Order: sequence, then C-alpha cells, then structure tokens
Amino acid sequence: MKLNSEIIEKFYNILGKENVFTDRETLKHFDYDATERHFLPDIVITPENSKQISEVMKICYENEIYVTPQGGKTGLSGGCLPVKGGVVISFKKMNKIIEIDDKNLTAIIEPGVISADFQKAVKEKGLFFPPDPSSTVESTIGGNVAENAGYTRAVKYGVTKDYILGIEAVLPNGKIVKFGGKNIKDVTGYDVIRLLVGSEGTLAIITKIIVKLLPLPEYRKTLIGYFDNMKVAADFVANIFQHRIIPTAIEFMDKITMNAVENYLNIKLPEAETMILVEVDGNKASCEEDAEKIFSLYKKFGAKDVKVAKDEKEADRFWTIRREALPSLKAKGLDQLEADIVVPRYFLPDFVEKIHKLAENQPIEVATYGHAGDGNLHVTIMYHKSSFDELVSANELLKKYYIEAVKLGGSISGEHGIGITAAPYLNIQLGENEIELLKKIKKAFDEKGILNPGKIFDYEE
Amino acid sequence: MKLNSEIIEKFYNILGKENVFTDRETLKHFDYDATERHFLPDIVITPENSKQISEVMKICYENEIYVTPQGGKTGLSGGCLPVKGGVVISFKKMNKIIEIDDKNLTAIIEPGVISADFQKAVKEKGLFFPPDPSSTVESTIGGNVAENAGYTRAVKYGVTKDYILGIEAVLPNGKIVKFGGKNIKDVTGYDVIRLLVGSEGTLAIITKIIVKLLPLPEYRKTLIGYFDNMKVAADFVANIFQHRIIPTAIEFMDKITMNAVENYLNIKLPEAETMILVEVDGNKASCEEDAEKIFSLYKKFGAKDVKVAKDEKEADRFWTIRREALPSLKAKGLDQLEADIVVPRYFLPDFVEKIHKLAENQPIEVATYGHAGDGNLHVTIMYHKSSFDELVSANELLKKYYIEAVKLGGSISGEHGIGITAAPYLNIQLGENEIELLKKIKKAFDEKGILNPGKIFDYEE
Repeated sequence: MKLNSEIIEKFYNILGKENVFTDRETLKHFDYDATERHFLPDIVITPENSKQISEVMKICYENEIYVTPQGGKTGLSGGCLPVKGGVVISFKKMNKIIEIDDKNLTAIIEPGVISADFQKAVKEKGLFFPPDPSSTVESTIGGNVAENAGYTRAVKYGVTKDYILGIEAVLPNGKIVKFGGKNIKDVTGYDVIRLLVGSEGTLAIITKIIVKLLPLPEYRKTLIGYFDNMKVAADFVANIFQHRIIPTAIEFMDKITMNAVENYLNIKLPEAETMILVEVDGNKASCEEDAEKIFSLYKKFGAKDVKVAKDEKEADRFWTIRREALPSLKAKGLDQLEADIVVPRYFLPDFVEKIHKLAENQPIEVATYGHAGDGNLHVTIMYHKSSFDELVSANELLKKYYIEAVKLGGSISGEHGIGITAAPYLNIQLGENEIELLKKIKKAFDEKGILNPGKIFDYEE
Repeated sequence: MKLNSEIIEKFYNILGKENVFTDRETLKHFDYDATERHFLPDIVITPENSKQISEVMKICYENEIYVTPQGGKTGLSGGCLPVKGGVVISFKKMNKIIEIDDKNLTAIIEPGVISADFQKAVKEKGLFFPPDPSSTVESTIGGNVAENAGYTRAVKYGVTKDYILGIEAVLPNGKIVKFGGKNIKDVTGYDVIRLLVGSEGTLAIITKIIVKLLPLPEYRKTLIGYFDNMKVAADFVANIFQHRIIPTAIEFMDKITMNAVENYLNIKLPEAETMILVEVDGNKASCEEDAEKIFSLYKKFGAKDVKVAKDEKEADRFWTIRREALPSLKAKGLDQLEADIVVPRYFLPDFVEKIHKLAENQPIEVATYGHAGDGNLHVTIMYHKSSFDELVSANELLKKYYIEAVKLGGSISGEHGIGITAAPYLNIQLGENEIELLKKIKKAFDEKGILNPGKIFDYEE
C-alpha cells in the first residue's frame, strides 16, 4: 500500500506537523549519501522519541509501507538510501547525550548524536570512545552502530560493536525492545545487541545506545617509514606483534596513492613501494619503550626515512599524509569504483600484488591504501565513465578483486557494509545456505520486509 | 518420533558402530554437568567431523528427534544436559588444534579441544588466548563458545565472544554454514558468529572455530589489599580507571568468603570487609608504573595489608586466596544455590549490601565473591536442604537477588548462561517483547525446536 493523505494525517497526529515533510524540496535533502546515488523518499519524518517511532511503525507495518532509517548520510554502501521510496526516519532531533557515567565508564546516547560531538564530550571528562570513523564530523553514532563502522584504531581497540553494551530498538511491528545495559558481561538470552550492530538498519530501528568507555590513554607515539618491498613490510608488521606490541594503528599506502598525495599536498615523499605508519598509545613509559622497539624493527627490515614524531604536531603531520589518501585520489578527477576489502593481515602483500597484476595492461589505474594492522584495505579503481570499455573493465576488475580476496580467506566488506554497492557481490563470499539463513533472520524481525528494503541480500539490479 | 532401531542403524552407517552408544552404563557418563543434575540421553554419538554431524542432523530433523551438543560438562547452568532425552553429540573425538597461525595471529580448532590444552599450545608459540575460565582443565573451547564463557581477565580483554573470528556450524536441518574467517574486520551480512556465541547450543552445532590470538604479555604485576568498607573499595576501583589504567583483573571476596578461605587453607587474613586483588599486564615499564600508582591508591583509600607480589610465586599465592573461594565455601558442607549476577561495576557495593541485608534474620548464610572489575559476582546461598523452611527461604532469596540486580540495571547471568538453572528467572530481566523476539530467532534456525530443547525460554518446571 502506498502512503495516502489519511496516513499522513496520522503521522501529523503522532509527530506534530513540524516533524513530517512531504515537499520535494525538503525530500531532496534526504535522498543521498556518500555513494552519491539518489533515491527520493515519499515522506521524511524527524521523530523526537522512541514512542513516536513505535506508533509510526505500527501504521507502516499494518499498511506495508517501506521505512528507511537515516543518520548522517556519510555511508559508503548506500545503507540509508530509501531505494524503494516510502518513509525516511531521520534522527536529526534524537541527538541527545543522555548521560556520561564516569564511574561505570558508560554513556547513554540517542542515535542522532554526531560522532565528533560525542568524542569531544567524553574527552572533556578524561574518557575515550575508541570507534572514530573518518566521517566523524558528520556521521551519527546510530549510523556507525548500524554499519558497525571501523576506523584506524581497530588493531588494538576493535570495532564499533565492541563498545555497544545496550540497545533500545523499535521492531518493524512497532514493539519496543531493550537488551543489555551498563554491564560488560551479560549472557542472558541471545546476543541481539551484536546482531543489530552492523545489520544496516534492516532488522530494527535503534533508538537508544549504551556504550562502553575507556580511560583516555595518556600518551601516544607515532612512527612513519617507507619500504621498497611490501612483503618485507608485512614481515615488519608481523614482527611488531612478535615483539609483544599491539599497536593502536598500522596504516599503509601504495605507490600510486603516495604519488597522488604528493601532487595533492605538494610535498615530496621518499621513492618507495609502500608507506607504513605505526602508532602506539598507553602510558608514557610503555609508549617510549614500544616506539624504540618499533624504530629498530623499521631499520632491521630496511625501511627508509624512518621518523618518530617528536611531538603531537609532527604526529598529526604523519597522519595527514595517510588521511589525505582519499581526497588526493579524488582530486585526480577520474571516475572511481571503491571497494572495502579485507584479507587476513599477513596476506595483504599477496593481495596488493594481485590487485596491481590484474590491472596491468588495462586503461585503468588502481590505488590502494588502508589498515595494514587489520588487513582492511580500500581499493580505488580510477577510470573514465565516458568510455564504455573502461566502464566494463573497471567493473570486471572490481568483481575479480572480490573473488581474489575471498580466495585468500578475506571479506568483501570490512567496515563500509554491503548495502547496495557490495550487494551484487554478496554471493562471492556467502553461499546459498548462509544467505538463506540471513533471510530467515531478517524474517524473524521483519515478517513483511518493510524495513530498509533492497539491501544486502534483498538487492535487485 | 522416538529413536528406533532403524534410525540407530542409520547412525551406525554414518558414524561407524564405534561412535554410537546406547548402553545405559555409557549413557550415564553423559547425563550430568557441574549443576549436578542428571538427565539420561537415549543415545550418545561421538562424531569425527562436521559431515557426519550434518548427516545425523538431517535424520533427526526429519524425525523430530531431540539433539543436545555436549562439551566438557563443566557448565553451571545445565546447557549441555539432554533434559528431554534424545541424542547427545559429544565432541570427544573432534578435539584437534588444526592450525596456529603465528603470522595472522589466529588459530583454527575443533570444538572438543580442552581449554587448557589450547592455552598451552598457543603459549608455546609466545601467543595468548585470553578467555580462560576457571574450568580450563576440563572445559572445551566449543562449550566456552556456546556459553560465551567469562573469566578473570575480562576487565581488560573482554569475554569469549571477543575472540571468535569464524565459525563453521551445522544447522538443525543438517545444512552446513560458514561465517567469518581470519579477519578482524568483517561486516558482510549479519553477525551470525556472535549470535551463535552464547546461544547455549540452541541455534546450531558449532563444528569448527577460528579464534583471534594476541601476543603474550611480557610481564604482570599483582597486588592485594583489604578494605573495611566496600563502598570505599568501589571508589578505589573507579579511581584506578580514572588514573588511566585498565587492569587485567580486579577481584573481590566478602568477609564470609574470606572466613571460609581462612578455614579451608588454614591461613589468617586481615580483619576486613572485603579483599581486593588487582593485576596489570603489558610491558615491564608500564606494569611497574601502573603497580606503583595502584599501590598508592590502595593506601590513599585506606586499605590495610597492601602487598605487591615480588615474583610470580607470590602472585600465584595471592591468586590462590581468590581461586579457593568456591572450594572453601563448598567445604562448609552445606547445600548451595549459586547465582552468577552482574551489576554495573560501581553499583557492586550497593548490591552486596542488599545481598547481606536481605539475608539478615534468615537461617541461611550468603557469601559473595567475584569480578569487581566488571561487576560480575557469584552469590552462594548456603542452607540445609533437609529443612523445608530453609529450602523455601533460600529459593525466595535467590529470586530477590535477581530482582534487585535487575533494578540496578544488572543481569541475571554474566558468564554461566541461562540454561535450566536461571531459566525460571528469565522474565525478571527480559520482557514479553524481548522473549518473543528470542523465540522468533530460535525458530529462524530451528523451525521444529529439536536442538537442545528445554533451555533459556523453552524451560518447563
């Protein structure tokens, strides 16, 4: 059933007219995300609490109206796009930090809280919320939870899911459920919390989040160095762990990405095959000791131009080189296909080698950079959309990369989600039995399939 | 349908006669766990691979025969007990460590591997698998995964679920599914892995496990001290975190438990309301620095008899005091009810106070000890079963404790699972909507309800 004036009237009653939008001008502000694809919703609502969402969902469930929850629209897989129209629930007005509990090291937040605002608020209390995706100034915590967002510190601190202790959510049928709380341990019933984290808004609408906080590390130490051979770099990385050090981050860029950064920032980097940045954090004594060991390892494995940041400012400069990878590649002005691939950490060089080999003799350039510490790399295929040959080649290449990653025991998405962009490739990683099971889980939550349709296994080209 | 000779014949064909047991003598070896309750299975099988399990499950599914997977029988909630008879699948013969990959810091193991054997094997390679429940010499990794077992190091290292990267499992209908791999990040599809971890063998039969390993910490430092006031002790604990230290373990015992330990070990402990043991690990420099800070904090908060272990031997002696809590209480020779309760860390003293207050003027003694660092405490109610009054009081008290814990935002199980022992109290923590959702998830996996029946929400008194 389509939305009609009777239903819209009901929405007015539940939400107030100020929270219901149907004019095209407004709708256009909710039709996109970072994938730059556009799908216009039929209506946008900005609820102020979970009770309103529950009431709305009851109506939508009864009338089989599609609903798509939406956060900061920074997603890279299309998770928040209303691909089949219907209602978009925007969390703009559910953006309160309800509590920061510095005794239990927890916080209670609404899903619409902007990541950076939350980061700032906890830091002011000497606390630390590790999950901090690069979209932090725009992305919402709700979106990060829905996508199980990753970030550079995942090597040591894990991903978003490792920090979610409790969730309140509205089921597609409008029922409100609460799981977990402020407890680090809780084995009562199935782990619905972690099932919802990373479910890309397809199972339930998250309306409240209880997160775990850590004490803010007192110190960090950042190192950078360049290797001529990526396999040697991988041995260097393995050796760091063998020296009983768990770094906060280990980041890398390949040569093509380095060249792009050089042009974009107008700097000169050493001639090398790969850059490796390593950061450790913790108390001062341990950071100094670890940094010394890592410095020797860089040298032992033949890295050039190894530097230990002497202060925060220099550390930030090292990070800038890595952080500008994506903008630098974008600045080349070519059309791009991006993949968020994972392979087991030590197999990264094999995969990078494969990436470049498969792109040889093609009218296409491929760059890669990412998280060497956890095997998650971002592959950017650059081509001219206007050339049909290049378009076909680029898409063929993308598929080949997914296949090669899975052959190495990897995954087709490490932190961006499947959404619509990776959905056509889902069956490369998951077999029939696995996909069938996912569909059954979906059905257990959403019998009628009204919540965030057209995503993951529900994709239609 | 009941098992009959035709079906047993099929089992012989699939498994070989040597892996199928129907004689009462043998069955009696598989009818109990650490809850000391007994339920005789109709048949026990000891499969050697997942293919055999798949074939068996197809037959059981078709004929609606109950199946209960069983590990080391050390569970404290009855998770592995065949409460409705049927088939017990024992993992005795699926106990191989298939691979320890010291480059990717992962291992692949079969579910029947004994925890301690695995601990030993990874340690020999300089690696570390943090989840190490106290039942380590008998419990299997499969059982620990099924129950999402906790342990003393959870403060810093998290619980079992935080170390499971990949799972192969046989669904009740016999289909084999594989999720995850050696990757730290993977957001492809729903997080079925963490749904299975802690599902107490009710959703699928886990047949292979890929775990994450860490480098072995090079050093540890253990401290012990005694407080006259538990609320002060809680402030001491909160202050450790405020000093930016994340200890490996923070353990406590109340006075009654201390007295029991004194009698059992024939030692003298300081007169105090609570003992607090703190351990840190990491590199030497950081441990020394942290231990110094923690020592000052003990003093600042007025602890008595504070000691820093000067070597491994003394550290082990401190731990012995804590580890002998359960045996010491058992040695009192009384009947016991045990609860595995969690409250938010900082509310522990409020809860302990409540525990003792509710037990006042009762012909019953209640002791508590556990993990102060994560709010998970074990409550032991001691009484005489032979006295009907005491039996009633003990059970009433247990229920009150669960209610009080949930009032404080806690949980009725932190690490032992719900199984059958906590099942009658499930609705204290979870409401109708939540339990309905759990049942729907169960149905998505196990349409006919044949796998490990009678547990969690499926309990009948």
